[in-house]
Amino acid sequence: MSIVTLLTDFGYRDWYVGSMKGVILGLAPHCTIVDITHEIPPGDVLRGALVLREACRFFPPLSVHVAIVDPGVGTSRKAIVARGGNMFFVGPDNGILSMAVELFEDKEVRAIEREELFLERVSDTFHGRDVFAPVAAFLAKGGEMMSLGRKLSEWVRIPFPEVTHTEAGLEGQVLHVDRFGNGVTNIPEKELRKIGEISSLRVSVEGLPHDLRIRRTYAEVPLGSALALVGSSGFLEIAVNGGDASKLLHLEPGKTRIRVLLE
Amino acid sequence: MSIVTLLTDFGYRDWYVGSMKGVILGLAPHCTIVDITHEIPPGDVLRGALVLREACRFFPPLSVHVAIVDPGVGTSRKAIVARGGNMFFVGPDNGILSMAVELFEDKEVRAIEREELFLERVSDTFHGRDVFAPVAAFLAKGGEMMSLGRKLSEWVRIPFPEVTHTEAGLEGQVLHVDRFGNGVTNIPEKELRKIGEISSLRVSVEGLPHDLRIRRTYAEVPLGSALALVGSSGFLEIAVNGGDASKLLHLEPGKTRIRVLLE
Amino acid sequence: MSIVTLLTDFGYRDWYVGSMKGVILGLAPHCTIVDITHEIPPGDVLRGALVLREACRFFPPLSVHVAIVDPGVGTSRKAIVARGGNMFFVGPDNGILSMAVELFEDKEVRAIEREELFLERVSDTFHGRDVFAPVAAFLAKGGEMMSLGRKLSEWVRIPFPEVTHTEAGLEGQVLHVDRFGNGVTNIPEKELRKIGEISSLRVSVEGLPHDLRIRRTYAEVPLGSALALVGSSGFLEIAVNGGDASKLLHLEPGKTRIRVLLE
Repeated sequence: MSIVTLLTDFGYRDWYVGSMKGVILGLAPHCTIVDITHEIPPGDVLRGALVLREACRFFPPLSVHVAIVDPGVGTSRKAIVARGGNMFFVGPDNGILSMAVELFEDKEVRAIEREELFLERVSDTFHGRDVFAPVAAFLAKGGEMMSLGRKLSEWVRIPFPEVTHTEAGLEGQVLHVDRFGNGVTNIPEKELRKIGEISSLRVSVEGLPHDLRIRRTYAEVPLGSALALVGSSGFLEIAVNGGDASKLLHLEPGKTRIRVLLE
Repeated sequence: MSIVTLLTDFGYRDWYVGSMKGVILGLAPHCTIVDITHEIPPGDVLRGALVLREACRFFPPLSVHVAIVDPGVGTSRKAIVARGGNMFFVGPDNGILSMAVELFEDKEVRAIEREELFLERVSDTFHGRDVFAPVAAFLAKGGEMMSLGRKLSEWVRIPFPEVTHTEAGLEGQVLHVDRFGNGVTNIPEKELRKIGEISSLRVSVEGLPHDLRIRRTYAEVPLGSALALVGSSGFLEIAVNGGDASKLLHLEPGKTRIRVLLE
Repeated sequence: MSIVTLLTDFGYRDWYVGSMKGVILGLAPHCTIVDITHEIPPGDVLRGALVLREACRFFPPLSVHVAIVDPGVGTSRKAIVARGGNMFFVGPDNGILSMAVELFEDKEVRAIEREELFLERVSDTFHGRDVFAPVAAFLAKGGEMMSLGRKLSEWVRIPFPEVTHTEAGLEGQVLHVDRFGNGVTNIPEKELRKIGEISSLRVSVEGLPHDLRIRRTYAEVPLGSALALVGSSGFLEIAVNGGDASKLLHLEPGKTRIRVLLE
């Protein structure tokens, strides 16, 4: 009973996700398909890479993660399969898999070259259905990754944006705005601890006149007030209790700078 | 083959739902996960409670319903498990489970206290993944609810808003606006029958100049016309044939008053 | 392990889809339920029919496809079951199944008349839960379609809008705008080939001052430029590389005319 997860920018309104699932279940009827999300904004490879990174680690060994945000579909960009620890990743070689695979020390990346696994007619614009779905089914049934194609030493990586250490503390950025409007930053808890006790740190959000203290829960500040906290992925988050921080504080992924200082 | 249903306000665009499913499937690989919805508006516990109440009763015995709309996550609010008839309910003790559990005569509520079941590191902001997902998997595998924690006699209930009987008939309200814009009220069919024959009743919608008769199907009135009918959940509904009643008639959940009178 | 697919206009925010799944899994616990989509615009039978047509063919034999966009629910419109090749289709007799069923040479349509299969209390407004879900479960468990009701020779078909051949080439229309804003037309590749070599054709989009050439991939034109290509369903598509063609070129399903001419 293998798990195949799907993460795409296909949305929920067309036949794209359904037809991928049909292909997978036709080839691997006993696998369990799990949608991570299909609402990655069209073509936003960075966002796809981030969401995959955060979701994949909670899945059991041998899960097969298919991630498709693929503006270059049909061009010469490679199709790749990766192993990170004991999980598999399948998708285009445009960086979408890279943040997840880089979580693991023990990893391997291969080109997908066994065309006899693909659907009989491969379209130029829907490799999710015609290439990646059958390859995922092959892996879910216990097929050998090694047999899929040659090992790659070069492949496209999106580097995780690291924080900058400054004299006063550190500087990072808002990485992702979630459904609640919380701004997830690129600042991991362990970097915070390098500066000082969490309780003695101050967080300065670009454009916000006053600094924020780091709280444990949303409810520690009054409704409608801004706060910082270490979120469930282990990164500093900027939030508003009961409100949408991205709107109220004008947080923009990849833009809004966040500084952490000792009191 | 147990069923675990999920109802949250997490939306479909982040990694939150995916990581909960990873945790559940890692612990209970043979369960079937069903999404009720993840589009409860952020923090809207009442709406979550209503949707859970309507959805849960169509599931088979031993289903485990996980419902998480949890603005107080990380505070001292309890985590609870409930049994209603032969179904299980898991979530925060803020009322979200209460309308569903109160459907059943035979019920029991317990605190979730067995911390060794939780994920190794419990975050302060994502108990869905770290607490409720592993507890749901435990129940789905046949774990004893009794072993999870002490029985509670006090727990948070959101009372179902009952109708008011007046001299002229009864008064209720719009409870929920659905995807089609239909206004589901809190007026059950059996209360209508207490006033008189359904066919001789008139429905007065706050702000609407003329009364409505109670029809059987949408198509009984011309396209674009308003009507009332007994909806599929057994409650009076206000609708517009082929249109969005909430927009056209300005229906607001919890606000718009509905009166039912004998002709 | 039979597959039941669901395609509806119920959306993701209410209890409607969840309660259908509860009914199906209660009756056929071993089936795999796959959501095609629940975001068909309310009442848009044509769109539902198109999406079902494109999705269904990628599913394995014996899949049961349930499609419910049903503005006439509760009226005298029939409930039908169809077999197309070795797949089953279940839904209202309003044309929603017709484009999918018409894909198959070998087909059969029957009225659903075995009321003892339905839920005990059949509402007037939610046959998805009360009629179609139990019938789908019956088929998924291997129940005989023949036993469901009498064979129909007349049933509602939505004709697939065919292209018109003109002296200069052919004329079609935008059929569907997908999540990316691509305009999928009703012009199949084989009709293009009747006019001439794909590379020597020009595509004229209503309202667009210049003609488009037919490319193989989005990336063959600069970012932000319009192009035509044969999409993954085998139909001519109008797209903008990295952009939303429906917004930029004002494409409207069922309205925007597309002409294909020899250079």
